[in-house]
Amino acid sequence: MNVEFINPFLASLLNVISTMASMQLTPGKPQVKTHNLAKGDISGLMGMVGPKTKGSLSITFEQGLILEIMDKMLGEKPDFLNEDVSDLVGEITNMVTGGAKNLLSDKGYDFDMATPAVVVGKNHSISHKAKGKKILMPFSHAAGNAYIEICFDEE
Amino acid sequence: MNVEFINPFLASLLNVISTMASMQLTPGKPQVKTHNLAKGDISGLMGMVGPKTKGSLSITFEQGLILEIMDKMLGEKPDFLNEDVSDLVGEITNMVTGGAKNLLSDKGYDFDMATPAVVVGKNHSISHKAKGKKILMPFSHAAGNAYIEICFDEE
Repeated sequence: MNVEFINPFLASLLNVISTMASMQLTPGKPQVKTHNLAKGDISGLMGMVGPKTKGSLSITFEQGLILEIMDKMLGEKPDFLNEDVSDLVGEITNMVTGGAKNLLSDKGYDFDMATPAVVVGKNHSISHKAKGKKILMPFSHAAGNAYIEICFDEE
Repeated sequence: MNVEFINPFLASLLNVISTMASMQLTPGKPQVKTHNLAKGDISGLMGMVGPKTKGSLSITFEQGLILEIMDKMLGEKPDFLNEDVSDLVGEITNMVTGGAKNLLSDKGYDFDMATPAVVVGKNHSISHKAKGKKILMPFSHAAGNAYIEICFDEE
C-alpha cells in the first residue's frame, strides 16, 4: 500500500479531534500490522468501495480517551460507553473517512463510503480481511490510546 | 425496510451453514432492533454501497456455535477464537452477503460489497449507524446463538 493512502487518514483524525474537541493526539509511526495487537473498548468501522479497489477502516479508542473527547466536545462525561458515546464514535468515523476521501479524491483515488457500525466491548480486537497489507496507525494521549487500521484489496 | 430486503440475508446464512457445515440453524422472528441486545463473541462486519442506498451488515456468533461450525467444516476445534476462526467468520460474512446480493440483484436491488472485518471480544455489541431501521434476525442452535443485523440508509 502506497504511503499516499496512509497520510490522508492520519491527518484526517488529527484534524477532526483538534477541530471538534480542541485536543491534540500524538501520532506514532504507521506500521504494517502482523498481529492483532491493537485492542480497545469502542471502535467505529467503515466499508469503502471504489472502481479500482475496496477495503475497510476501523478507528479504535480506549475508554479513557473517548470519554475525554466526549467531555471536550459535548461537555458530557458518562461513566460508561453508552449510546451517546457510540453515536459520537460513528460520527467521528464518518468525518475521518469523509476527510480522507476528499484528500484521496484530489489525488485521483476515488471510493464511496458505506455507513459506519460501532462495536462496544472491553478489550476487543479487529481483523481486516481485505487481501492487502493491514496498516496500523497508533495515536497517543494522556487520556488513552487510539488506533486507525486500514486494509484495501491490492489491485 | 421492506421484507424483501430481509429474507435474502436470512436464507443465505441458513444455506451457507447447511452447505458448508451440514448444520441446521433455527431462525427466529426478524425484529426491528430498539436496543443493543444482540451480544456475541465474534462478529463479521460488511459495508454495502449501491446506487440508491448504502448500509452495513453484521453476523455475530456465540463462541460455542462458531467453534462447532469450525469443527464441522474443517475438522478442527480450537480452544479459543484464534485467527483461523476469525478467517472463517470473514469467509462466512463474504458468502452470506454475496448470496444475499445475488438474490437481491434478481429483484432489482443492486449493491457492491466492501471487504469484511472481524471483531473478536467476549460479549461485545454492535450498533449500526445508517439512518434506517435496524433489523435483527436471531438464529438458534444447541451449540449457541447467532444474529444477523442489517441497516440501510432510507431513501
